[in-house]
Amino acid sequence: MEIFKFMVPEIIFGKDTLSLVGDSARRLGATKVLVVSDKGVAQAGWVDQAVKHLKEVELEYQVWTGPSENPKDYEIDQGKEIYLDAGCDAVVGLGGGSAIDAAKAVAILASNGGKIQDYEGVDKIRKPMPPLICVATTAGAAAEVTQFAIIVDSHRRVKMTIGSKSLVPDIAIIDPLLLSTIGARLTANTGIDALTHAIEAYVSVAATPITDIAALKAIEMINTSLRASVASRTNLEAKTKMAMASLLAGMAMSNAIMGAVHAMAHPLGGLLNLPHGEVNSILLPHVMRFNMIACMDRYVDIARAMGEKVDHLSTRDAAEKAIEAVERLCRDIGAKRRLSEIGLQEEHIMELSRAAAEDVCLITNPRDASVEEIAEIYRAAL
Amino acid sequence: MEIFKFMVPEIIFGKDTLSLVGDSARRLGATKVLVVSDKGVAQAGWVDQAVKHLKEVELEYQVWTGPSENPKDYEIDQGKEIYLDAGCDAVVGLGGGSAIDAAKAVAILASNGGKIQDYEGVDKIRKPMPPLICVATTAGAAAEVTQFAIIVDSHRRVKMTIGSKSLVPDIAIIDPLLLSTIGARLTANTGIDALTHAIEAYVSVAATPITDIAALKAIEMINTSLRASVASRTNLEAKTKMAMASLLAGMAMSNAIMGAVHAMAHPLGGLLNLPHGEVNSILLPHVMRFNMIACMDRYVDIARAMGEKVDHLSTRDAAEKAIEAVERLCRDIGAKRRLSEIGLQEEHIMELSRAAAEDVCLITNPRDASVEEIAEIYRAAL
Ligand SMILES: [Fe+2]
Ligand SMILES: [Fe+2]
Repeated sequence: MEIFKFMVPEIIFGKDTLSLVGDSARRLGATKVLVVSDKGVAQAGWVDQAVKHLKEVELEYQVWTGPSENPKDYEIDQGKEIYLDAGCDAVVGLGGGSAIDAAKAVAILASNGGKIQDYEGVDKIRKPMPPLICVATTAGAAAEVTQFAIIVDSHRRVKMTIGSKSLVPDIAIIDPLLLSTIGARLTANTGIDALTHAIEAYVSVAATPITDIAALKAIEMINTSLRASVASRTNLEAKTKMAMASLLAGMAMSNAIMGAVHAMAHPLGGLLNLPHGEVNSILLPHVMRFNMIACMDRYVDIARAMGEKVDHLSTRDAAEKAIEAVERLCRDIGAKRRLSEIGLQEEHIMELSRAAAEDVCLITNPRDASVEEIAEIYRAAL
Repeated sequence: MEIFKFMVPEIIFGKDTLSLVGDSARRLGATKVLVVSDKGVAQAGWVDQAVKHLKEVELEYQVWTGPSENPKDYEIDQGKEIYLDAGCDAVVGLGGGSAIDAAKAVAILASNGGKIQDYEGVDKIRKPMPPLICVATTAGAAAEVTQFAIIVDSHRRVKMTIGSKSLVPDIAIIDPLLLSTIGARLTANTGIDALTHAIEAYVSVAATPITDIAALKAIEMINTSLRASVASRTNLEAKTKMAMASLLAGMAMSNAIMGAVHAMAHPLGGLLNLPHGEVNSILLPHVMRFNMIACMDRYVDIARAMGEKVDHLSTRDAAEKAIEAVERLCRDIGAKRRLSEIGLQEEHIMELSRAAAEDVCLITNPRDASVEEIAEIYRAAL
């Protein structure tokens, strides 16, 4: 245990807590709120619901549903203009990772100026940001609790990671009812994203006792509730457990940082504009296989959290069970198996590998990975 | 899982993190800091150390070491006067529960005015408080992470509980090196306070999955490191584990609230001006015995976290093991066994029981307790 820092937002969790968004914004001193969301969330009716609760406490508001999946730099500029033109003084992010990352990025530019590229990397945000409330509409991305925002540089076609304590929202609202309008595919993808956060945090070189307990509990809850959550839109018990698991995984991941899965998913998602969770679900078992020799004992813990019976096994065999259990879960929920299915071609691999080797998430990966080793992992998953 | 809220300060943990107190205050915009500590901490040299780190970043400061064990209302008034006279704009609490509770209370009055009695109860603080950084010098009270402050009403001779999200410090610094100057008795008392926080949070009716994992991990770490920490001033590994356990127990307790041990310890500590942890260590096994029928399964989890082998036992017998394990730990570290040893007399019991029945901590106790039942517990511990 070296020196570490730990930071999470104030969390409000539970059925119907979306109704507290207005009170929460008022409490932070907001008078006019920019609601950053996306078209899917608006179509599901949640933007109207949020607006209703803002009106109830007589807050002014402006809605912006411009960010796309994997939000782009030029979209953030648009959002910032809308924020400034409307005279907003607070931001509500309402969505999965994309909308919330966009909300964070708009909040950066609104108070700090410049272009979003200026903030790539760690601790580049100098001025205080406007009050930020984030409401999760998926169980997985966990951007509502993290100190990160991921924005695509449209020229370089890479995802930039922006990391700063300033990006931890003031308040995170996690309302499992919001999960009832998303389909099986998105539930599966985001669920595996949460699993990836928990596993990468648990094996991270920056893990701490606090992030460890959150990560292991998240793995356990995902293993026992993701299948049922994918199977049924209306299984509120499974949705509630997945919402909790995503929150715990996010608390762990934001503070222990991530690893090679995210380092490799970022350039790939940026290049081909792919759903983040889908990329993770293909890469995760392959990266786990690569990382295993770095921390076999921790893999045994993961196997146990995944419900495997490992007491009769050697450490090596028990560690292997962690990978098998993850593969089985991915199969059960119908995740894609190969990167070639989602558009990757051999010719991209070296460029992606060089970008992954530069991604900040690789710093906390438990096993050193050269560009060539990263390329081998991409190839194994092709 | 009903609706719940979860809030912890930004946490900085590790050896020599006291050196970050100046940077932390600067980051919060402080220009002149009131350092609230006590004479024991000053004698150990930690106030001078803290001041050195404030000077390093050219912060002005004023030191106040006025609060006594179980800080009194009139002391808080003195602290507030010093804060205002010196023109401070931030507070650093440096100590165990007493100094940090006093720091919180001074911060309330400095910005909200009135007398400290005005804020007794839940959510009575209306105006924003000055930036507040708390540095723990014991492993147990955990006031540096909680939303509570406990102040003695000197006329009524009771402890008032003040609960508000505003009391969660902006930054909590937990530096295990600071534990090396406290003796065996205080180490034992504060360690049992931490154990009490973890156990009361785990059986609280307001427990959540987040507080559960923190509480169980805390119990496990206290069971494996408190004995060694009491045994040696210089065992930094044990101190570090106890610092972490106290932090986890505090995170659990602040968000799940407490139970009958604290409800009964508050009036008793107020009446006889006793060390809080010492009172807890006597009451804890007795309250556990009373509460057991409310949540036997959870007692089995506690027994396991205390290292007991319970797989071959009935739930009832396994639950009993939790109480035995706690009693054994208290005995091993030389805790007092009877309230009569610390000054309680039969004639006080009915008055104390009536006060305990009114304490906010009783609301989250898992078993309903009448005044007469509370009196029976005091008598059993007499
Ligand atoms: Fe992710
Ligand atoms: Fe306590």
